[in-house]
Amino acid sequence: MDYAKEALRLHEQWNGKLETVPKMKIETRDDLSVAYTPGVAAPCLEIQKDPKMSYTYTGRGHTIAVISDGSAVLGLGNIGPEAGMPVMEGKCVLFKALSGLDAIPLCLNTQDTDELVSIIAALEPSFGGINLEDIAAPRCFEVERRLQEKMNIPVFHDDQHGTAIVVSSALVNALRLVKKQSPDIVINGAGSAGCAIARLILDLELGNVILVDKQGILEETMELTSGQRALIHRLNKNHKSGNLQDAMKQADVFIGVSAGHIVSKEMVQSMNDKAIVFAMANPVPEIEPDQAKEAGAYIVGTGRSDHPNQINNLLAFPGIFKGALDAQATKINDEMKKAAVYAIASLIDEKELSPENIIVSALDKRVVPAVSKAVKEAAIASGVIRKWDSE
Amino acid sequence: MDYAKEALRLHEQWNGKLETVPKMKIETRDDLSVAYTPGVAAPCLEIQKDPKMSYTYTGRGHTIAVISDGSAVLGLGNIGPEAGMPVMEGKCVLFKALSGLDAIPLCLNTQDTDELVSIIAALEPSFGGINLEDIAAPRCFEVERRLQEKMNIPVFHDDQHGTAIVVSSALVNALRLVKKQSPDIVINGAGSAGCAIARLILDLELGNVILVDKQGILEETMELTSGQRALIHRLNKNHKSGNLQDAMKQADVFIGVSAGHIVSKEMVQSMNDKAIVFAMANPVPEIEPDQAKEAGAYIVGTGRSDHPNQINNLLAFPGIFKGALDAQATKINDEMKKAAVYAIASLIDEKELSPENIIVSALDKRVVPAVSKAVKEAAIASGVIRKWDSE
Repeated sequence: MDYAKEALRLHEQWNGKLETVPKMKIETRDDLSVAYTPGVAAPCLEIQKDPKMSYTYTGRGHTIAVISDGSAVLGLGNIGPEAGMPVMEGKCVLFKALSGLDAIPLCLNTQDTDELVSIIAALEPSFGGINLEDIAAPRCFEVERRLQEKMNIPVFHDDQHGTAIVVSSALVNALRLVKKQSPDIVINGAGSAGCAIARLILDLELGNVILVDKQGILEETMELTSGQRALIHRLNKNHKSGNLQDAMKQADVFIGVSAGHIVSKEMVQSMNDKAIVFAMANPVPEIEPDQAKEAGAYIVGTGRSDHPNQINNLLAFPGIFKGALDAQATKINDEMKKAAVYAIASLIDEKELSPENIIVSALDKRVVPAVSKAVKEAAIASGVIRKWDSE
Repeated sequence: MDYAKEALRLHEQWNGKLETVPKMKIETRDDLSVAYTPGVAAPCLEIQKDPKMSYTYTGRGHTIAVISDGSAVLGLGNIGPEAGMPVMEGKCVLFKALSGLDAIPLCLNTQDTDELVSIIAALEPSFGGINLEDIAAPRCFEVERRLQEKMNIPVFHDDQHGTAIVVSSALVNALRLVKKQSPDIVINGAGSAGCAIARLILDLELGNVILVDKQGILEETMELTSGQRALIHRLNKNHKSGNLQDAMKQADVFIGVSAGHIVSKEMVQSMNDKAIVFAMANPVPEIEPDQAKEAGAYIVGTGRSDHPNQINNLLAFPGIFKGALDAQATKINDEMKKAAVYAIASLIDEKELSPENIIVSALDKRVVPAVSKAVKEAAIASGVIRKWDSE
């Protein structure tokens, strides 16, 4: 199937991928009097008395905002908020289809950090959680951190943490399969996703991480972003230096969150035996899966839904938000992220595990229940449940 | 029916009155590849090339934001954004049920004018129009004016203009029935709705308007808001003075957009023969309809759906936005408002017109098609259709 052509045809036919549908009929004056005025005053007054009741009388407890400034959309870059909308609508479709959560796509006409923070913070009364999406680094770090400080609902930059969680899940299973201890793990792309993946892999103690960007293997003497600087002392234990090509020599794992077709067959051939290649750039991966396989990669994953081993955020975000909202958590903390990693990984047991099957399908009906249960339990255990004045 | 009790019961059961529902199934990898990555990149790139295509490939062309700061909700006052949400959800239900437009409820956690303007302006890429709702005067005037200057999509404060339009429609028909020329029209409540009603009635040349608020009949020497000051020279041609009681003596029409039960039977008795009483305060009208009738009022209307002659904004906003969005209008101007007034009024013909039937039911299936057609035509005729760079 020519996905681009089919997507254009269907997007024109759909004319927007979502509908907002009432849960009740409005056919009589009584219908109006209950769903709207005068009856609606009663739930309003109950919420005014006790804001907690907004989770009972409105939909916020199961509604997410998917918010972008259009500055880093898919692998397409800074295409702007109008052009980012099809992705945000798609993300909302997936929220509903996979987790049952309602989700609203919002593309904002500003790329100013202060404005993004004040706009998104002001949306709190309408939502149970905020999914930040496709916001460029380093702005995304500051936007997320400041919102997490200001808001009493979870704020989660999916490109960072969702990606980190699913990559870690896939890596846990891939390493189970190749039975390697302390592998050398090259991450190419040291922006928001790359740094978040590096951090979570280190927190989970999965191996030695070498982080690479356009200037080569990151070293302390280089000009680093705040996100990179916070990690630099935990990276590259064997003191490799040079460019991506150098980094990949004798590496065990390659994780790309960078750009299409920048990894050659030769580079994969230079890796250790039983090489693991996760080429996550979207829509065009760092190396095509068949090329990577031909070059000797033992396990290949991509972010795309049209290849095996799809390491896609959609394994994580529906269940993570469902668990966080079910718990009325105020944030999505490290404990909840780790719980999600192992919940996803454990859905493939030893017998099923193979190079073509290291990660469960995002459409597997078991994913969201497993992830949301683990995340909810971790939220409760780690004490990030919202406390109300009335309690 | 006890609407308050029933509304509480059903609001708890509904747990939010809206769902965001995908237009397609997500069951296979192909489904994912078309609705999401990689296929979704194609419509994104088309929109980046030509922003007009956002009306083809996303839902913004039929999607409204219903936005409030919770500062003037129904007749309940400044109950805050959480407590305002049931009303905004209800409004969105009505948009969908009556016009087919999708609508998203957003209650904002700020009542600062500058912040409201910058937040709402930033939402433009996601929506085809902005319905401002339940924002207190005088802030609502400035917020609306500044947004209309900044934004290329219609911004419409329904409490002002929607109310003015439906009151004017009802008044046109009521005056047809009582056959009065140049009636004295008392409007009680000189906030956002009262000023907008006064202005539209004057623009339509329906009669002599006396505007009253807590300080009595407005006079030039009083301390006036900017909205009141802009009108003062057009008001009170017969130089009445005093309080509401004085204003109503020998008046032909009373229009209340103020507070519950502040008009007595004696005050209605002091009006001229064939008095018209529109007691619009919500949820409790200025005088109960049966009391007004007993006091001799010939025609009584309220804003409530459980009485005859419901003069409710929902006669106007669904068709007005539908017409404006169908035309891709950049604003909702005076010509479009006047077209809406006469489109609504003309749905009751001479034979049907009676004191109990001066305004068509908001649930009448003819309303939205008639209003949207008239508004669309007025938008085109008055030249407020969006021009794109690509045209």
